[in-house]
Amino acid sequence: MTTYRRAGVDLAGAHRHVASIGPVVTATWNERVVGGFGGFAAGLTLPPGYVEPVLMLTTDGVGTKLELARRYNRWDGVGFDLIAMVVDDLAAAGATPLGVVDYMAVGALDPQRDTAIVASIAEACSLAGCALLGGETAEHPGVMEPDQVDLAATALGVVEKGAELGPHRVEAGDVVIGLASPNLRSNGFSLVRTVVGDRDLHEEVDGRSLIDWLIEPSVIYSPAVLQAVATGKVHAAAHITGGGLLANLTRVIPGGCQALIDFAAWQPPPIFQRLSEWGDVPAGEMRGVLNMGIGFCLISAPDDANDLIELCGHDALTIGKIATINDQPANG
Amino acid sequence: MTTYRRAGVDLAGAHRHVASIGPVVTATWNERVVGGFGGFAAGLTLPPGYVEPVLMLTTDGVGTKLELARRYNRWDGVGFDLIAMVVDDLAAAGATPLGVVDYMAVGALDPQRDTAIVASIAEACSLAGCALLGGETAEHPGVMEPDQVDLAATALGVVEKGAELGPHRVEAGDVVIGLASPNLRSNGFSLVRTVVGDRDLHEEVDGRSLIDWLIEPSVIYSPAVLQAVATGKVHAAAHITGGGLLANLTRVIPGGCQALIDFAAWQPPPIFQRLSEWGDVPAGEMRGVLNMGIGFCLISAPDDANDLIELCGHDALTIGKIATINDQPANG
Repeated sequence: MTTYRRAGVDLAGAHRHVASIGPVVTATWNERVVGGFGGFAAGLTLPPGYVEPVLMLTTDGVGTKLELARRYNRWDGVGFDLIAMVVDDLAAAGATPLGVVDYMAVGALDPQRDTAIVASIAEACSLAGCALLGGETAEHPGVMEPDQVDLAATALGVVEKGAELGPHRVEAGDVVIGLASPNLRSNGFSLVRTVVGDRDLHEEVDGRSLIDWLIEPSVIYSPAVLQAVATGKVHAAAHITGGGLLANLTRVIPGGCQALIDFAAWQPPPIFQRLSEWGDVPAGEMRGVLNMGIGFCLISAPDDANDLIELCGHDALTIGKIATINDQPANG
Repeated sequence: MTTYRRAGVDLAGAHRHVASIGPVVTATWNERVVGGFGGFAAGLTLPPGYVEPVLMLTTDGVGTKLELARRYNRWDGVGFDLIAMVVDDLAAAGATPLGVVDYMAVGALDPQRDTAIVASIAEACSLAGCALLGGETAEHPGVMEPDQVDLAATALGVVEKGAELGPHRVEAGDVVIGLASPNLRSNGFSLVRTVVGDRDLHEEVDGRSLIDWLIEPSVIYSPAVLQAVATGKVHAAAHITGGGLLANLTRVIPGGCQALIDFAAWQPPPIFQRLSEWGDVPAGEMRGVLNMGIGFCLISAPDDANDLIELCGHDALTIGKIATINDQPANG
């Protein structure tokens, strides 16, 4: 006799999972959320004040940083990695996050782990000011290891038409403000895992264990960035994910322009140097994959930079400028 | 020397992938899509005519049906499975799909396969009348097998506030209309894979190879359902996914009521009977996991059923009724 349970899918466990996360999920809801928990779709109404709202969707995953979470059973911060990836992509367009749905694929359900993950996602949503509207938890027996997890999420955001940030507002002479990231966020972990190999991640780096350096949750920049955007002084913004500073800045500057970054302007956290040494990773490769300590950039007129740096509340500094393609880099 | 490429992540390949799918993706766009391809977020404006729009998000994956796609290299229909899962969840709430983002996790990029998958997703989006706004393709080297794929998507829909379908509109005496599904859609495949085991899926079942029965793409009901919903005669609707008919109907009927389904009212496609025999799967288990040939249900007043059946364009019939909990099932 074959049953779904014997095939590795625990529908009763899935129902228990959904029931157990209900209060945590609905705690992120505000008065604009419509419909109940457990329906086919949850919804929300728009905040007041938009004349011609543009609805934006962004989707992303945590990637193989989850392998470290699995190896060291550290799930309580993964929600911040997940939500940072999507709401900070919205922030790069100047959009305010309204709601999120998450997708979790697992080899087998694990109530303690799964509840911790959803609680972390809900906490991150609350910090970002958006509702966790729902999600999907899928068991993939025989395809994923029982203790394996993949996480993705989609965020819905809104921006007034014409107020979107982007290349059309940027011009040569603008400056690039970098917002500090104390860690790698959720990018480049396939490189990192190759570099660290079988190394014991309890080893200390600068007074702190390697696993703590690596697993530390991503900063969620969205609330601070949206405060800066509200001044009208931000021309464009870039979320520094896979591809590093230059590739991500290139997405938001006009053709004929380039971002000249002074990589000597700040000191990356020591974990970056250590990874580079251990793995003999060339400097160009480091900069082309990792954020090097700058997780988000704002582009503005030079005269507005100090105000924005003060306003945004994160450690921030001017790290470069926008120039026409023919200009020379600041640091050769 | 360690590089991202040697660690298994091909950023240049990812850029080629994004460039290659651009025309396919933007072909799904209409005049309401705002922003270009390749930014941090793509957006859209609302269709005209909504007074108080409720924005709905649904997310889901294809699940382990993808393992069969992988084994038989049959990727051209998976987009229909993916998009059916999310837009038909929206349809169950009465919401019109506006835009979709997809998440694809792979062990390694495979240009031919990945282009086929995105083309299939785009084709399905066009059929469902919504824009493929963007997506994420993530390489997970060392975590997934190189040829392994996972797919999830999120759909954004809109419904006028107060026009949402749901339990609040349903009462005892309403009837349940079933829309035929010629196949398993994208649910129960972990059970199916256990049942078929190492069997050669080129074996014929009722004049057709087993793999063709199993891999056939899901019907996308959304356009037909929304036509039916527009009459104002639909009280609630259920997308029959994991959990089968009864569990999914339970999500949309009020407390104190039950759905009494006459399972003798229709004949499931022969693949269901064959799977049940091969796997010695009990009848209750079949009905509790698979759709048994009914992929979507509408609930309406009895007098409106014939009009709705005619309107919705799919093979459809009345398969049951809503009764108070104390009533007896139609078929014992």
